[in-house]
Amino acid sequence: MKALEEKILKEGKVLPGNVLKVGSFLNQQMDSDFIMEIGNEIARLFAGEKITKVLTVESSGIALAVAAGIALHVPSVFAKKHKSANMSKEVYTAAVYSYTHKETYEIAVAKEYLEKDDVVLIVDDFLANGNAVRGLMKIVEEAGAGLCGCAIAIEKGFQGAGDELRAQGIRIESLAIVDSMTDESVTFRA
Amino acid sequence: MKALEEKILKEGKVLPGNVLKVGSFLNQQMDSDFIMEIGNEIARLFAGEKITKVLTVESSGIALAVAAGIALHVPSVFAKKHKSANMSKEVYTAAVYSYTHKETYEIAVAKEYLEKDDVVLIVDDFLANGNAVRGLMKIVEEAGAGLCGCAIAIEKGFQGAGDELRAQGIRIESLAIVDSMTDESVTFRA
Repeated sequence: MKALEEKILKEGKVLPGNVLKVGSFLNQQMDSDFIMEIGNEIARLFAGEKITKVLTVESSGIALAVAAGIALHVPSVFAKKHKSANMSKEVYTAAVYSYTHKETYEIAVAKEYLEKDDVVLIVDDFLANGNAVRGLMKIVEEAGAGLCGCAIAIEKGFQGAGDELRAQGIRIESLAIVDSMTDESVTFRA
Repeated sequence: MKALEEKILKEGKVLPGNVLKVGSFLNQQMDSDFIMEIGNEIARLFAGEKITKVLTVESSGIALAVAAGIALHVPSVFAKKHKSANMSKEVYTAAVYSYTHKETYEIAVAKEYLEKDDVVLIVDDFLANGNAVRGLMKIVEEAGAGLCGCAIAIEKGFQGAGDELRAQGIRIESLAIVDSMTDESVTFRA
């Protein structure tokens, strides 16, 4: 998605630790028209799939999941994050290790919001080491639901997780794939 | 908003401790078309105001803020929640006491996302004791920005905070105001 690459080049900031800060339009501050454009692009990419639900994880994935849900006219669901294990039988859970925060947290979705006959599209703002997506995939599997793929705004291609998931047969559609980034430049996969 | 009252009566659940659970369409699971309807209704109510930014707090306010931002064609910003005080000079902060979780947390917005000439609309899913809204109002004030009002999906009218804020001259538009609720029934302010 050319518009996303241009936005990253114009407004993104590369911070130490391979952090690409896009808080001005995709995270803490959300460029509403642009977020809706991304939602429409996701709907276009997955047109023809019989998606019944969009799934993401709080908080930074919610805006894109909502926009994709609006564009696809299906509900979106977000997994909640907890620091400690939630033993409730009412939720599906997965452990996710965050390299950014250097801790393992748990993500949980109430069982009533994911059903066997759901066809799920996972949506997130970033795909880096793939841990969040794998956690969401585990939850979809536990629910016995189908997974039609993952729509990601920005994939850090140089971290390899996206290609690993593709090699496993998972459909990963990333709207921008960063091949390399330094203080001075960000380059994208053609 | 009649459609919201009907949705609450049909899908809402009253839980112990004055909790009104609307997770099936407004919180953990979001009914996308309905969320967009709410966004459009908020835009209609505040038409004519020169809103430049929608402000909410993570996580449950994000979906409505995104929808309102899309309808108003302005950016939305969410305050992040922290358990401990964040002393960074880069953020505006406010302390918020949560009756639900019985703890005080801090909400923070990066200074770069709120400016003096911003006209802010606060959006949230619930207004109960008003602490979250007051925290967001403090942040708007610290930023020196203008506040044009608050758009709330569900106000717990019986807790009184909405009317207190109105008495202070704050424009509070709640799409449904719950006057009373029991296990068996929910009644709305006419």
